[in-house]
Amino acid sequence: MLGTPQAKQETLPRADRRLLATRYAEVRAQSLEICRPLVVEDHVIQSMPDTSPPKWHLAHVTWFFENFLLLPFLGGYRVHHSAYGHLFNSYYESVGRFFPRLQRGLLSRPTVEQVRRYREHVDRHMLDLIDGDSGGDWNEIAERVVLGLNHEQQHQELLLTDIKHAFSINPLRPVYRERAGVEDTESGRDPGWSAWPAGVYEIGHEGGGFAFDNEGPRHRVYLNAFRLAGRLTTNAEFQEFIEAGGYENPALWLSQGWQTVQEKSWRAPLYWEKIDGAWWTMTLSGLRRLDGREPVCHVSLLEADAYARWRGKRLPTEAEWEVVARTQPVAGNFVESGRFHPLPVRAGASQIFGDVWEWTQSSYSPYPGYHPPAGALGEYNGKFMASQYVLRGGSCASPAGHLRATYRNFFYPADRWQFTGIRLAE
Amino acid sequence: MLGTPQAKQETLPRADRRLLATRYAEVRAQSLEICRPLVVEDHVIQSMPDTSPPKWHLAHVTWFFENFLLLPFLGGYRVHHSAYGHLFNSYYESVGRFFPRLQRGLLSRPTVEQVRRYREHVDRHMLDLIDGDSGGDWNEIAERVVLGLNHEQQHQELLLTDIKHAFSINPLRPVYRERAGVEDTESGRDPGWSAWPAGVYEIGHEGGGFAFDNEGPRHRVYLNAFRLAGRLTTNAEFQEFIEAGGYENPALWLSQGWQTVQEKSWRAPLYWEKIDGAWWTMTLSGLRRLDGREPVCHVSLLEADAYARWRGKRLPTEAEWEVVARTQPVAGNFVESGRFHPLPVRAGASQIFGDVWEWTQSSYSPYPGYHPPAGALGEYNGKFMASQYVLRGGSCASPAGHLRATYRNFFYPADRWQFTGIRLAE
Amino acid sequence: MLGTPQAKQETLPRADRRLLATRYAEVRAQSLEICRPLVVEDHVIQSMPDTSPPKWHLAHVTWFFENFLLLPFLGGYRVHHSAYGHLFNSYYESVGRFFPRLQRGLLSRPTVEQVRRYREHVDRHMLDLIDGDSGGDWNEIAERVVLGLNHEQQHQELLLTDIKHAFSINPLRPVYRERAGVEDTESGRDPGWSAWPAGVYEIGHEGGGFAFDNEGPRHRVYLNAFRLAGRLTTNAEFQEFIEAGGYENPALWLSQGWQTVQEKSWRAPLYWEKIDGAWWTMTLSGLRRLDGREPVCHVSLLEADAYARWRGKRLPTEAEWEVVARTQPVAGNFVESGRFHPLPVRAGASQIFGDVWEWTQSSYSPYPGYHPPAGALGEYNGKFMASQYVLRGGSCASPAGHLRATYRNFFYPADRWQFTGIRLAE
Amino acid sequence: MLGTPQAKQETLPRADRRLLATRYAEVRAQSLEICRPLVVEDHVIQSMPDTSPPKWHLAHVTWFFENFLLLPFLGGYRVHHSAYGHLFNSYYESVGRFFPRLQRGLLSRPTVEQVRRYREHVDRHMLDLIDGDSGGDWNEIAERVVLGLNHEQQHQELLLTDIKHAFSINPLRPVYRERAGVEDTESGRDPGWSAWPAGVYEIGHEGGGFAFDNEGPRHRVYLNAFRLAGRLTTNAEFQEFIEAGGYENPALWLSQGWQTVQEKSWRAPLYWEKIDGAWWTMTLSGLRRLDGREPVCHVSLLEADAYARWRGKRLPTEAEWEVVARTQPVAGNFVESGRFHPLPVRAGASQIFGDVWEWTQSSYSPYPGYHPPAGALGEYNGKFMASQYVLRGGSCASPAGHLRATYRNFFYPADRWQFTGIRLAE
Repeated sequence: MLGTPQAKQETLPRADRRLLATRYAEVRAQSLEICRPLVVEDHVIQSMPDTSPPKWHLAHVTWFFENFLLLPFLGGYRVHHSAYGHLFNSYYESVGRFFPRLQRGLLSRPTVEQVRRYREHVDRHMLDLIDGDSGGDWNEIAERVVLGLNHEQQHQELLLTDIKHAFSINPLRPVYRERAGVEDTESGRDPGWSAWPAGVYEIGHEGGGFAFDNEGPRHRVYLNAFRLAGRLTTNAEFQEFIEAGGYENPALWLSQGWQTVQEKSWRAPLYWEKIDGAWWTMTLSGLRRLDGREPVCHVSLLEADAYARWRGKRLPTEAEWEVVARTQPVAGNFVESGRFHPLPVRAGASQIFGDVWEWTQSSYSPYPGYHPPAGALGEYNGKFMASQYVLRGGSCASPAGHLRATYRNFFYPADRWQFTGIRLAE
Repeated sequence: MLGTPQAKQETLPRADRRLLATRYAEVRAQSLEICRPLVVEDHVIQSMPDTSPPKWHLAHVTWFFENFLLLPFLGGYRVHHSAYGHLFNSYYESVGRFFPRLQRGLLSRPTVEQVRRYREHVDRHMLDLIDGDSGGDWNEIAERVVLGLNHEQQHQELLLTDIKHAFSINPLRPVYRERAGVEDTESGRDPGWSAWPAGVYEIGHEGGGFAFDNEGPRHRVYLNAFRLAGRLTTNAEFQEFIEAGGYENPALWLSQGWQTVQEKSWRAPLYWEKIDGAWWTMTLSGLRRLDGREPVCHVSLLEADAYARWRGKRLPTEAEWEVVARTQPVAGNFVESGRFHPLPVRAGASQIFGDVWEWTQSSYSPYPGYHPPAGALGEYNGKFMASQYVLRGGSCASPAGHLRATYRNFFYPADRWQFTGIRLAE
Repeated sequence: MLGTPQAKQETLPRADRRLLATRYAEVRAQSLEICRPLVVEDHVIQSMPDTSPPKWHLAHVTWFFENFLLLPFLGGYRVHHSAYGHLFNSYYESVGRFFPRLQRGLLSRPTVEQVRRYREHVDRHMLDLIDGDSGGDWNEIAERVVLGLNHEQQHQELLLTDIKHAFSINPLRPVYRERAGVEDTESGRDPGWSAWPAGVYEIGHEGGGFAFDNEGPRHRVYLNAFRLAGRLTTNAEFQEFIEAGGYENPALWLSQGWQTVQEKSWRAPLYWEKIDGAWWTMTLSGLRRLDGREPVCHVSLLEADAYARWRGKRLPTEAEWEVVARTQPVAGNFVESGRFHPLPVRAGASQIFGDVWEWTQSSYSPYPGYHPPAGALGEYNGKFMASQYVLRGGSCASPAGHLRATYRNFFYPADRWQFTGIRLAE
Repeated sequence: MLGTPQAKQETLPRADRRLLATRYAEVRAQSLEICRPLVVEDHVIQSMPDTSPPKWHLAHVTWFFENFLLLPFLGGYRVHHSAYGHLFNSYYESVGRFFPRLQRGLLSRPTVEQVRRYREHVDRHMLDLIDGDSGGDWNEIAERVVLGLNHEQQHQELLLTDIKHAFSINPLRPVYRERAGVEDTESGRDPGWSAWPAGVYEIGHEGGGFAFDNEGPRHRVYLNAFRLAGRLTTNAEFQEFIEAGGYENPALWLSQGWQTVQEKSWRAPLYWEKIDGAWWTMTLSGLRRLDGREPVCHVSLLEADAYARWRGKRLPTEAEWEVVARTQPVAGNFVESGRFHPLPVRAGASQIFGDVWEWTQSSYSPYPGYHPPAGALGEYNGKFMASQYVLRGGSCASPAGHLRATYRNFFYPADRWQFTGIRLAE
């Protein structure tokens, strides 16, 4: 995904070449940092059609800078390797044919080392471009650099979720990073529900910082009175659903949900395993006993919807969610915490940002007046506006600076490998 | 599909047993009338996974009355055949396991004659039930009868679209009914666009006649100012899209659309064929030269969306459509015309009802406050509220009395075998 | 399948035009006789990829005469319908493109009545051809007529096995023909094994009557000393295999067999069902309690092989089988008995002909010196000589006059819907 | 695959512990030598369902020694890792469940380095076992060691063919080893055909050295008079077949062949590519211009059969091939030449051993009197005796000491990624 910055220039680092160069270096370094615990072999595999090999992620985000910045704007630039455009384009049909997505795990070359050299080559030239005197194109360049960095941050989250999936199917159950000491969380009063009156609200991005194209235009919506849960649904609560036969009762499920439950034999969220009568779950720190206080995670929209129905509640719309979220600071358990796992639900924390992405009942569709940008960059977000659903709020694998109340993430109703959870509405 | 009547009792035929009995007989007779041009063999086949054999339709709508009316309300009623519940339940998981949908065309028995006897058996008892003295349940009975008749009307439309598909794949190209004489339609001024101001509108059903559960509750929505085309998109216009390379240009398509175009090798709407350089199209009156003045038909949402993008327009939302449609009478080219094909676009006719179902960009989802009815009848509409899109207005295969401005039909984005067309918005 | 007659002219009915015309009428009438218990609907369906709708069989064998006899040899003959060549060619690539095999059940037209008229049309002209004065081509004509009649007989057997399959998947369990009275069969001494010495034998057809091309040339083979069971394996014996866990023990199975058992969840022969702890089996007279004395039937080669291994035996080669079979008269329980089901194993009857086809361990491959005939008729047998296995002896669904000791039938190792059984060797 | 040694003890290296230890070390070292040109990433990928990742091969052959030698015979031995049995068992159902074959390329761990440590661990204990004083089991131990080494040699060939496939689908076209200088081969007289009289021959292994179980028992066969080509079919000859429309003419193909040609769009042997009008082919030394004098390679049985039919010839039976081959020395272009590619056809060289495996028309089936060994080792060869065909003679990727005139290799009719070619018979 990728969008067009709609923000005022003065608020962005791009106003200052040095600041932008620093930011560029930081974000790029973070991708390598994420891969530091991996062995070479881990970079190669694609454990299911939705994931990509880590070395593909590392190369693809680099190709983005090469293709959308260096080639059009850096005079005399020559591509690092003539085949990389074909190999590392993800889905930009306008740019040319690309290597089939399902076969990304069949390529042993370029090697991890070669991909790193590709990154260094592009970084060197990107810093030239940012520092250089490129005249009148600077605004466009700065906007695209910021876009490229946000794009790379999205792939940083995918790197973590894809590694988690790859490790989960390996009988050796590798550990990505040992778990740090566990803080004891005091329990407290249930925060209950926040109530909102009916009326016309405005949602969507209105400038003042970077945002993806799909977050605008800002526009009005009419909302009925609604209430949103003050906390996330927990593992313990979801276990009650399982024990009440939730996965065996068709009346609770959307038709597509029931069909999926049957076809995939779902009986619990992804990564849950029953061992000797107790639930365990795979984490980036290895297999661990399920903690009932943590928010339920790795559920699909279909499971979230069935759970909500069973509770006599529903999922929020994205407009409801945004109206509530923008009253709260964008703070929480993001990737910088080094936990790579959601924190337990506890008193005094809404967890509306970070921890787990929250499914909404809203189909991912264009806001009124939305037009994708011209050219290949227009393929970033708009072309996926069918059959997917919106998630909000970020997760424990999202970079902190990457999120906003208006941020719209989207996945298919049956997807489960992201850190996705449930907040009820009514 | 099936819904719960939400209308006031006095406005429904059910207020009067005799009127309801007459209506029952009429609708039931109409199903047989639709099958009159068929030979026995035509009743047996299922030409693709989405369609059903005509004899299955005839039996399934009958089972609906047997299962939801006769069994619970007619004392001492015994099922006509113990296996028919299993064979002719479509998807009511609450009622019990049902025969796999994809294998409906593998059953030669019961025969067409036996299905007709099943219909007669149920009709006889249904008239007993309607005429009889069933005491305090009458309101519930009457509501369910009306529901069952609306349900049967939906299957009448499917009978026609399924037959059309079955005939289209047969190299002999059978004719369902010979085409009646063609009226000459004078052309006239293009009706242009109707413009609507921004503001809060109310949509959804508010009582006063039958409606399905998914049409309510009536609720407010905020709409930006918008314009809706005063006429449908024509074959000639869609041909321009084809000739401009619309099916070869990925930039015009949603990601799901482009993938579908590649996988299914779409190059034109369903039923279009190029013969010696000219376009022909399969109709229920056989293969016929394409008439450029007729509305384009048998396009998927994906094609409708790509076409709109190519024109620099978009598809309407269902709320926009409804706001406009309710200002017009529910009149047009319905199944009663005996044409089984849309009429040409012409001066003075918006064709907003009848002719072709109109794709909207709205995902099929619950209205605020929607709750499906309790019990198996709750499976009628609500459980399909994922990954489908709303169509509005009815078609040349819909019964006239069956439609309303609030009526919500829904199909998957790639479905094309219904009479589905395009009305642009901006 | 189809072959080239290699027999001496004087021994064939074709020597006499009147005899041949009579034989033609008899065989053709028999196909209609087999379909007499069917309703129109039964003629339309194709219950799995390997089967064909009865009306397709009736038309296809007719097309054979039209295409290979009337068109080349009857001056001025015009095809009955221009589309039928396309629709009813089975696999003769040399003759032209044909309608996809898997979609045969999607065609409601031509109707059964139209297919019958097609048969009458071709029959009328065939009798003209046979009776007529066609000069020097008579030998070729007579050979092809005999071939066409043998071809039709093969489809008569397929008609019965395809109907049986279609009825078996229908929850109504239709009856093709009521079972005639059951004869009581006295048991007797087990016939034991017949022993044969090592040496060079001759096998294959040597003239003297019609044979398919794949039965020749006659040639020498060296056989080790072997013993062949004097009777077929029974249901009771096969049940022991099941009860001993045969379907759960990978050590008994060929790799392909074990894979198939897992994928298809095989736990018993096709058509066996356990109802309240007892085995039942579907027959052409409906569902019936399994009779332990009858030969096991509807097993695949893979099951036959596993069973033999479990008994410490093996399946015979086709040469071994033929050497034994040619010492016995071609007599047994064929289709003419009207039983449509194998007779119990009993004293004094080897059942080597009729009852059930017997799997051999021989891959279906060309005999030394085999050359398929030139032209489209060369596609009859030779092109299937890969990945199939030979069966011998005919079944209760084979016409009596159709079989010989040299007759080679062939199916894939996992096929089960023919009347296929087991005779052990060692 | 694996077999039971049937040879006399005195002729095997196992007679001497020191000789066997040396041989063990040699064969084991050769596997690592084959992987020396690979980078770590190359060891991880599985480029199609039939291939395996190199690190899987390295571990699997090691598991073979651990499971069949160390565990049963080395007192006190403990497995190197408890999960490796599950991960590296290939198909021995008797030994326990194994990791799904199709997912071998989804495992990044154990790493290549860990697999090497596994090899060292097992090697250390194997040498203990061979050198040690294990008493009365020595015969069985020695037989199994020899079997294990032959097994490893088979996987050495697969390592090369699997690497070749993986490199072929990579757009970067990696080079496994640079091509050595090309010797100029003088052309000479075509060796013509060798003619053999009809009669009873003996084939199969008769002792005197190691052989797999499937090569025996030695037994008699009757052969008609036949002629076998004195040389292999060349690329230039096969090109004539292509240019004559061989791939477009259904009359030349077995039914299964024609279906495969259509489904897979075959137009030439595997690894052939047309670039600017000229044929190129992928080799282990990279993409190279096709050399017409080299034997055609990477053809399936289906293509070999069609080619032979087009020439008016046929493929040999395995008995014919063996009768001829045993009159010649087991010498030729094996893996030790370091060419990894067949040599050109030239005067004075039959190339009956080495260069390319030669398809026979013989289905892979048990010889008369064959019984697989008891226990898990019985799964080595026998369980694949269905639907595969025999190849003879070894290839440029086979170890020299591994081949014999009686050696039976087997693959499915459509397999092409082995070095498989054509020798005609008539």
